[in-house]
Amino acid sequence: MADKKKRRRQNPDDDDDGTQPFKHLLKSDEDILKTLKSFPSSSAAASSSSSSSKPLTLADLSLSTTCREVADLSLSSVQSAIETLVLQLTHQILSGQGFSFSVPSRASSNQLYVPELDRIVLKDKSTLRPFAHISSVRKSTITAKILSLVHQLCLKSIHVTKRDLFYTDVKLFQDQTQSDAVLDDVSCMLGCTRSSLNVIAAEKGVVVGRLIFSDNGDMIDCTKMGMGGKAIPPNIDRVGDMQSDALFVLLVEKDAAYIRLAEDRFYNRFPCIIVTAKGQPDVATRLFLRKMKMELKLPVLALVDSDPYGLKILSVYGCGSKNMSYDSANLTTPDIKWLGIRPSDLDKYKIPEQCRLPMTEQDIKTGKDLLEEDFVKKNPGWVEELNLMVKTKQKAEIQALSSFGFQYLSEVYLPLKLQQQDWL
Amino acid sequence: MADKKKRRRQNPDDDDDGTQPFKHLLKSDEDILKTLKSFPSSSAAASSSSSSSKPLTLADLSLSTTCREVADLSLSSVQSAIETLVLQLTHQILSGQGFSFSVPSRASSNQLYVPELDRIVLKDKSTLRPFAHISSVRKSTITAKILSLVHQLCLKSIHVTKRDLFYTDVKLFQDQTQSDAVLDDVSCMLGCTRSSLNVIAAEKGVVVGRLIFSDNGDMIDCTKMGMGGKAIPPNIDRVGDMQSDALFVLLVEKDAAYIRLAEDRFYNRFPCIIVTAKGQPDVATRLFLRKMKMELKLPVLALVDSDPYGLKILSVYGCGSKNMSYDSANLTTPDIKWLGIRPSDLDKYKIPEQCRLPMTEQDIKTGKDLLEEDFVKKNPGWVEELNLMVKTKQKAEIQALSSFGFQYLSEVYLPLKLQQQDWL
Repeated sequence: MADKKKRRRQNPDDDDDGTQPFKHLLKSDEDILKTLKSFPSSSAAASSSSSSSKPLTLADLSLSTTCREVADLSLSSVQSAIETLVLQLTHQILSGQGFSFSVPSRASSNQLYVPELDRIVLKDKSTLRPFAHISSVRKSTITAKILSLVHQLCLKSIHVTKRDLFYTDVKLFQDQTQSDAVLDDVSCMLGCTRSSLNVIAAEKGVVVGRLIFSDNGDMIDCTKMGMGGKAIPPNIDRVGDMQSDALFVLLVEKDAAYIRLAEDRFYNRFPCIIVTAKGQPDVATRLFLRKMKMELKLPVLALVDSDPYGLKILSVYGCGSKNMSYDSANLTTPDIKWLGIRPSDLDKYKIPEQCRLPMTEQDIKTGKDLLEEDFVKKNPGWVEELNLMVKTKQKAEIQALSSFGFQYLSEVYLPLKLQQQDWL
Repeated sequence: MADKKKRRRQNPDDDDDGTQPFKHLLKSDEDILKTLKSFPSSSAAASSSSSSSKPLTLADLSLSTTCREVADLSLSSVQSAIETLVLQLTHQILSGQGFSFSVPSRASSNQLYVPELDRIVLKDKSTLRPFAHISSVRKSTITAKILSLVHQLCLKSIHVTKRDLFYTDVKLFQDQTQSDAVLDDVSCMLGCTRSSLNVIAAEKGVVVGRLIFSDNGDMIDCTKMGMGGKAIPPNIDRVGDMQSDALFVLLVEKDAAYIRLAEDRFYNRFPCIIVTAKGQPDVATRLFLRKMKMELKLPVLALVDSDPYGLKILSVYGCGSKNMSYDSANLTTPDIKWLGIRPSDLDKYKIPEQCRLPMTEQDIKTGKDLLEEDFVKKNPGWVEELNLMVKTKQKAEIQALSSFGFQYLSEVYLPLKLQQQDWL
């Protein structure tokens, strides 16, 4: 290795040939493209047994427990749902039963992983939130306030952020976690997605590559977005008309790898759409990814760090977060493939020891917890990789590939992965 | 107030007229536009006395201390600067003086605020970093490594992130702060900006509105970027051909306010370019803002939270951060105006008490520290506002305006500010 490094310093121009392992295995781009073109069909074949081409719904399954799911509703439906609810409440009060909301429980005891759907859903337990009780008077007042604010948004047909909602009555909400939590309650109560409420999260994702879509009426061509890419819109309901000649979607965990691929215009060498939420998946990016998958019927390949958080991020895109399990049907993208960096890649691609990091106690605990999760257990390949990670106690970021040269990711690692169809 | 709130709940449709203070003061858009059209000339007049239209440089001033500044260099200039440096080192070694880098000091004792330029610059103190000394052998090795990596980037003409650099030799760098710090040293040593080294930071800013520019060869029309806007490219050297019919640039601290303005297409009502770094200003957004200011000669109006950090963020855009003072000439945007939310606005616009937050001890300390800074002292209006903030011990976010309705920001507050030319 020391010898190789010396050579690289002397001839920086040709280090690609000297020190980039496995470059000799690469076939011509033409050959790899042929492999890629078999993707959509093979993926469709694979997914007919899982959940992507003809998506199963809760209703298709005869589950022993009743489950609750929300749907995308139009603004006017949300408005009338609120009005109906308020009328019911009025009747309750007039009939002497008092003022009380029935709120679906979002606790983990009320959550269920449904293997057939490969996502977490909410069971049907509800709790009462009476106004005339010392322990719930504040929360029921907040609930009424949030309902009234959402009703205003329906009438005005505008979008606001959670922070905006909070600031309409700081004295009542006290801190934003309280208005946020009730907002999720209101979604469940009305049976609609949070986006249907016109409350949006700040955008943070970007997209670049072989995709054309409309954002609020403007046509966006993501091959013409330079290196910066297009910011993913915060409100998915104004996104439409997706067109693409891509063969797959490359979902990237972090922006450093995204920048490398965008500058190298990787999507022109291998037609694809590159998307990243720059870390933790935000709601806007999750909705956008799902929309691409559903409308374009493309396989989604994920490039994440080889650590428990990389897999956790992948699982949030794929199966949903526990916090928003009531909306998993709309937020999750079925059948995401784990392309890399996988624990087995560290040895396979000879990632140097000094680029691997020892896992902390917390890392190892998170890894072991993941092994207990149903959505991991379901995929034997993932279990095997995760076991290897926990056993070797080593992790590595995507950037660790830079030790073979800055462009190793785009020039050798990814093409080889695609050529070998090496995903799980 | 309680009375008004009640009315708003009953008639959500007309609350804009009932409870939005100062709406009656608003003139017609046409009148406000007339006011706006006097901007560029008035700004040019104002800035001839300051530093924007014919920018002063360090060389124009007869300072008693010599100062060091870096410049944007072409890749081939950076390459030959590195080669020259290495030749010098070789001569040093051959002449028996040993192997030692001379590194400009970036400590605060070596920084200077130059009021004529309204930014922080670096004085000319340097320290020796000998290889043959136990305390500096690691750092000089890291310096040599970084120089060699940057030399590779020059030869390949690609951009990488700081994280990529770190991963080329984790064993040597140990943690990223070490490679990052030496990267800044190398910028100073070579006399060039960090962007000239082709090392970029992850992008995080977005831009929307009346701006057309090219990103890596693609023409981008920011009026056609929907609500999401265009992600600001990480590498400013591939940005060019800026064109605009805007009357001003609106610099927004956070994305909640940005989303409101983008959805309302505020830039069509009052022709402007809206830009945000979503919090702390990153290098890419600072470079982009400066480029807009310089090429389009537009006034820049800042909309930040009314707290010490809002002003601090404004000052980073305007005068630079201490950490990168060696590059202040390229990173700062002269003559940014403080539009709001200003401490005096809280009473002026009757922001309800419950939407103001008490300042913490740390906030108050930061505020008092800012009062000692030369770039604040220079602007009597800013000093007055900051004194008021520290005295009242109250802060407020931009979102506090939502207490008058979600669109109060775009429909009343900003138009009125513009109409009254109410900035400092």
